[in-house]
Amino acid sequence: MLIVQKYGGTSMGSSERIQNVANRVSLSLYASYKSHKQYVKDKDNVNRNNKLVVVVSAMSGVTDGILEHAGFFTSTPNERDLDMALSSGEQMSAALLSIALNAKGLKSIALNGRQAGIFTDSNHTKARIQYIDTTNIYKLLDDGYIVVVTGFQGLSNSGEITTLGRGGSDLSAVALAGALKANVCEIYSDVDGVYTTDPRIESKAKKIDRISYDEMLELASMGAKVLLTRSVELAKKLNVPIYARSSFSDDSGTLITTEENIMEKPIVSGIALDKNQARVSLISIQDRPGIAAELFGKLSKANINVDMIVQTIGRDSKTNLDFTVPKNELEKAKNTLNEFDSYADLIDYDNEVAIVSIVGVGMKSHSGVAAKAFQVLAKDNINIRMISTSEIKISMLIDLKYAELSVRVLHAAYKLDQ
Amino acid sequence: MLIVQKYGGTSMGSSERIQNVANRVSLSLYASYKSHKQYVKDKDNVNRNNKLVVVVSAMSGVTDGILEHAGFFTSTPNERDLDMALSSGEQMSAALLSIALNAKGLKSIALNGRQAGIFTDSNHTKARIQYIDTTNIYKLLDDGYIVVVTGFQGLSNSGEITTLGRGGSDLSAVALAGALKANVCEIYSDVDGVYTTDPRIESKAKKIDRISYDEMLELASMGAKVLLTRSVELAKKLNVPIYARSSFSDDSGTLITTEENIMEKPIVSGIALDKNQARVSLISIQDRPGIAAELFGKLSKANINVDMIVQTIGRDSKTNLDFTVPKNELEKAKNTLNEFDSYADLIDYDNEVAIVSIVGVGMKSHSGVAAKAFQVLAKDNINIRMISTSEIKISMLIDLKYAELSVRVLHAAYKLDQ
Repeated sequence: MLIVQKYGGTSMGSSERIQNVANRVSLSLYASYKSHKQYVKDKDNVNRNNKLVVVVSAMSGVTDGILEHAGFFTSTPNERDLDMALSSGEQMSAALLSIALNAKGLKSIALNGRQAGIFTDSNHTKARIQYIDTTNIYKLLDDGYIVVVTGFQGLSNSGEITTLGRGGSDLSAVALAGALKANVCEIYSDVDGVYTTDPRIESKAKKIDRISYDEMLELASMGAKVLLTRSVELAKKLNVPIYARSSFSDDSGTLITTEENIMEKPIVSGIALDKNQARVSLISIQDRPGIAAELFGKLSKANINVDMIVQTIGRDSKTNLDFTVPKNELEKAKNTLNEFDSYADLIDYDNEVAIVSIVGVGMKSHSGVAAKAFQVLAKDNINIRMISTSEIKISMLIDLKYAELSVRVLHAAYKLDQ
Repeated sequence: MLIVQKYGGTSMGSSERIQNVANRVSLSLYASYKSHKQYVKDKDNVNRNNKLVVVVSAMSGVTDGILEHAGFFTSTPNERDLDMALSSGEQMSAALLSIALNAKGLKSIALNGRQAGIFTDSNHTKARIQYIDTTNIYKLLDDGYIVVVTGFQGLSNSGEITTLGRGGSDLSAVALAGALKANVCEIYSDVDGVYTTDPRIESKAKKIDRISYDEMLELASMGAKVLLTRSVELAKKLNVPIYARSSFSDDSGTLITTEENIMEKPIVSGIALDKNQARVSLISIQDRPGIAAELFGKLSKANINVDMIVQTIGRDSKTNLDFTVPKNELEKAKNTLNEFDSYADLIDYDNEVAIVSIVGVGMKSHSGVAAKAFQVLAKDNINIRMISTSEIKISMLIDLKYAELSVRVLHAAYKLDQ
């Protein structure tokens, strides 16, 4: 089978760690993959040598070092040259891994974004992949090479080096897996998978074996350590199964795949916590069309990301509008909101809040999930300030001081520790 | 005028130093170049803005760091991937310099070997430049850009990244200056020019204002700190004037140019010292054709570089053959020489020797230069073991213990301190 693997900066952080990655790659090449059986699609091929494309990030520290140098000259380095500087980090790490693989007697070759045929638009430092010309990679795979590819970078149509922004190496891996029709995209990092909740808050948190793309997206705040939203969205679009696991252990990880590939659909898969949101409440605003549109339009223009939005009917044909913005954008939001002062009786802000969310594809077909959440929180006198629900998520805004407690009681209530 | 500048790894060794380089580049762009008048060819253009191509090495330490990583995996890293790893160092430094120049409000762009159109053969880690496609650079210069180019690297015809070996960035600069028909190639390093001899041996050594390519080649042992033989040879071939100076001071440097451009031809330009050679003497060998050919053929096959070769007539149609090999290759040479044991009465080795050389284009038209050297050495009881002369050089092999003394007395004898 054809496997795309991706190793992050921490996994590539020293000669010893690159050697460790080389050892893993070498095992992946010859292993029958029985241990990973659960995600082998191509059952007939399990005993054949696998074909491998290995995507790497820059060694940890290298990218930050480059940014630090650039920051010495200016706080706004020109992005075209910054991309050229940044991309050198992956060029170095990819070549070093290929040297290590060759030194093990394996046939390996490193390709940069250009050589790998990864073409992007010209938006330097945040380019989007436009297409992948797989000719060269397919040829090298057919010739028996392990193909090591620089993550995070591509080439614009005008021949300039571009980079893909934060989490760009994951994106490279997922895009390559899609273009090459790989059986799986393995994402190796220092995190060994997706958990039912943050193990630092609830020590009984359990690793999730399989999770759907949609659940993963809803668990963003927890999942970010494993995979950014952008990459999950792309994987969903390209139907690429992602296997997230640690490069530092042999423990199994988490398979992120389509809902159909998950046999036992748990009602609740995980509990997410977001302590970075602040609440904004417009109390008793005139209920006339266009105010909300104008308000959120201006916030969007000011690059303020709004998360939860809840509107309720008030008295006297007036209405209450509550929403959340990132805490570090609250001051900026206030400037915009001052313009709307005359529309509302009161505009109220609260920084001391948190959003706790229950996520699970099984919710779709089960009732009573929300009721249980409200019950267990009430039992511990945790007041719910805002509620927002989607097909597979229930989010509740609570006082910040109850954040960890609410995670623990919800985790127990849905028996996620079992 | 069009100037190619090259800054070495030490000059680019930190954010502060790159900033310093950016300042120098900026001055070079707008300066009238009156201070460099001596090497301005294009006199009419001295007041116009100059066009600049800036070639850079990797920041000092980066290349060694990459080699160290590669060396962790194997003592013989595969050269194709090693080139890819090594070339990332210049890609980083070139981009950072261009960021610094842009931050100063200058129009600047960094190009890697591919983008600069530097095409080489496929001999990884020691590629030779085959041709330079100047289209892109000329276009960018016409558009008003300072063009920063990665030194040391190129692209093979099959699209692989190659590197040029030791001193490769100098070579890139000289080749670009030749291809672009630049007025001058300025080589900036931590050495401020070529001296009449090593100032650590003779504190009265003086910086040479102008020196011919040939003298520079003969002064290799002294000149190596400034410029490797390969680059001088290329500059001579392409008729590129090189101006070697320090990036850390405003002192004038040394112009390396054709003999015709040097008005006052000194009889002796400098005294060179080489303490890295060992003497090999084959005493009373049969004087029949083919022995020397066979001997030096075998040494060459063993990759042993022979420097001085002197043969004298001996008694009884026998002959003595003396030559020198690098000290660290003497043991290897002995293995080869053992095969010739039967041809000679005695094979003698001496590690405790040095070669002192007098170099000067003026020698061609002056007699008595050699005689004076022999006299002053004799006066201090310095025995000359071997003598070898060329048109512009007289080399003498002496006992190692007299090495520094001989440099000083010769330096004084030819009045190089005046």
